[in-house]
Amino acid sequence: MRDVAIIGVGMIPFGRRDEDSLLDMLAYASLDALDDAGMSEKGVDAVYVANMGAGILQHQTSVASALVDRLSLQPAAADTIENGPASGASAIKNGVLAVASGYYDTVLVAGGEKMREVVGWKATDFVATMTHPEVEYPYGITLPGMAGMFTRLYMEKYGLTQEQLIAVAIKNQKMGALNPYAHVNMVITREGIYESPDAAVNNPVAADPLRFYDMCPVSDGAAAVILCPLEKAREISRKIPVLIAGFGQATDTHTLQEREDPTDLKAVTLAAEQAFRMANLKPKDVDVAELHDAFTILEVAESEHVGFFKKGEGGKAAEKGETSINGKIPINVSGGLKSRGHPVGATGVAQVVEIVFQLRHELVPKRQVKDAKVGFTLNFGGFGNNVVAFVLRRSE
Amino acid sequence: MRDVAIIGVGMIPFGRRDEDSLLDMLAYASLDALDDAGMSEKGVDAVYVANMGAGILQHQTSVASALVDRLSLQPAAADTIENGPASGASAIKNGVLAVASGYYDTVLVAGGEKMREVVGWKATDFVATMTHPEVEYPYGITLPGMAGMFTRLYMEKYGLTQEQLIAVAIKNQKMGALNPYAHVNMVITREGIYESPDAAVNNPVAADPLRFYDMCPVSDGAAAVILCPLEKAREISRKIPVLIAGFGQATDTHTLQEREDPTDLKAVTLAAEQAFRMANLKPKDVDVAELHDAFTILEVAESEHVGFFKKGEGGKAAEKGETSINGKIPINVSGGLKSRGHPVGATGVAQVVEIVFQLRHELVPKRQVKDAKVGFTLNFGGFGNNVVAFVLRRSE
Repeated sequence: MRDVAIIGVGMIPFGRRDEDSLLDMLAYASLDALDDAGMSEKGVDAVYVANMGAGILQHQTSVASALVDRLSLQPAAADTIENGPASGASAIKNGVLAVASGYYDTVLVAGGEKMREVVGWKATDFVATMTHPEVEYPYGITLPGMAGMFTRLYMEKYGLTQEQLIAVAIKNQKMGALNPYAHVNMVITREGIYESPDAAVNNPVAADPLRFYDMCPVSDGAAAVILCPLEKAREISRKIPVLIAGFGQATDTHTLQEREDPTDLKAVTLAAEQAFRMANLKPKDVDVAELHDAFTILEVAESEHVGFFKKGEGGKAAEKGETSINGKIPINVSGGLKSRGHPVGATGVAQVVEIVFQLRHELVPKRQVKDAKVGFTLNFGGFGNNVVAFVLRRSE
Repeated sequence: MRDVAIIGVGMIPFGRRDEDSLLDMLAYASLDALDDAGMSEKGVDAVYVANMGAGILQHQTSVASALVDRLSLQPAAADTIENGPASGASAIKNGVLAVASGYYDTVLVAGGEKMREVVGWKATDFVATMTHPEVEYPYGITLPGMAGMFTRLYMEKYGLTQEQLIAVAIKNQKMGALNPYAHVNMVITREGIYESPDAAVNNPVAADPLRFYDMCPVSDGAAAVILCPLEKAREISRKIPVLIAGFGQATDTHTLQEREDPTDLKAVTLAAEQAFRMANLKPKDVDVAELHDAFTILEVAESEHVGFFKKGEGGKAAEKGETSINGKIPINVSGGLKSRGHPVGATGVAQVVEIVFQLRHELVPKRQVKDAKVGFTLNFGGFGNNVVAFVLRRSE
């Protein structure tokens, strides 16, 4: 297997982008990445598009072929990859395998989703199409519903508190307000939201015990990366190459109820273990991590399952500030899904783009993790039924 | 790159399968393939699902994760690949790259589509979601419409005749009637259909000059293959390994009107060239081929573009019987899309399954191409905007 590096990244600000089509967003992010790699005038060998919902939301298929056309990248090969909210990381993984095999030298991976066309219950319903088609979806379970039940179990088993989840929400909105790509730029405080007399109105219960500010927004957005063999990185691009040091992907039962212990996110643990083993690194070697905080509980649970903290310690660590930018292990310095937003097909790519910014030391001081050399991403499909992890390393 | 072999294949009869869900069909074909490889009791490292329309047709996403769950293949990695009607070949290609890279040893690729839930204009509309979302779809162009215009141009430029297209239809329905997996088992004759006084009713114009019997049916179906490194094939399975000797994938302009010469299917030529170059073989070395005859015209045009015949000679060759089972180059001995049916996500996988049957010499004499050693498949996405080709070789 050849070592694979990221030599270019691109992203557009997430949020409500009524003026842009899905194809527009994918094209802008892709051009940004090609530009970043210094490859605007060159083509690529293959294109992977990560997208979950164009069929349902835009009544559109063959998005990868349309993107190649839009960018005049013919005759590059093009495929669309779907793995629910982990589509982005799955697409990068397949791009990495394609380059690692020796078949392709340059691959563009672009993830995007245009979700704001449906809001309210229709957005929740769209996301619920990833639940089991026979034993979950027909009975009306939603992802927030699953997350609420999961939180309750976590509280009972590990003593997780609402205060600990609030610490995650406040941290991620604080960091998102510093991120020009973030959907939500609003700083929240205990006094302003949680202790306000209007809290019941402004932060209503969504799926008990989770409230409004425990949830990521519904966003439009796109992000892109360019991959090539590490050995060719410096001749193709002037940017500091970021090595895909390790990756892993694991599945679990599609339904929560079939899991022996529903608080045990086995696929998260396995995907992370695979990635760390391949990279020959350990969780303690990670300088900065992007976890999949579609709900605040997920950041806490994932921080334990990937090995940053022992089971039951993640919430306390967040409360003590150990996961903030100056803490022991900075998590979601980007603002996470909670603030950057969660255009499902884009998220896994956006996580990797953020880590590349961090490892290239390109961010403003308030957002830059000092001397970051090793990064980690976790992209969570379904309710943990298909999880993809990456360990990335700055290549000096 | 490691050489990759197919060590198991599975398929279910295509047609109208009201009693089966999409997941049922994918599971049946996958179990058939695992069984064929002698791997029923073993797992696989990764699963790829080829599907175009579950979002639109079944309001369902994350099909690959659901299939892993259904088959109890956790923690195997799982991704869904979409490339319109070429989704099947794209999924196999990505499975091949994954094994070739050295990262995975055993990969299941299953393609499926449940299309009969929508018939008539809704089926045509579903397929049209692969046209360009801005400059084609909103104006009402459909795939049959494109094929009709393409046929007219081909007739004008190359002197293609309706008689030649009829020869393709008769050949493929004759062969499909011998294939237990085929949707359509009806033999058609010149007298019975084309020269019948009821021809205008029974074979009406669909998209002039194409008529009803120039089109593939709308089908449900699924097919699957198991991949592994060639060097491990004999220790994993008792079946004669079929080597993926070469493959290629190329894109063209998404819209027909942007092509300098709309009769020139550049992506078909390029994908085939790539596959033959990698295999170090030539079109004349092919013993049996599966081409993408969603419309009779496509079999003729593809047979020329991949190099079996000179431009303008494909129709004549079909009329002379050169593409029938005992001809110079047997094409669509399975009955093709025309008879086997065209459940879009399944088709590219089904083509490869048919060639594996042929190269393992497992078919009944009327369907078996004698001593077949080299096979070829062509899976056509969009209207030739994203094409995938394979050269397969019996590995003695």
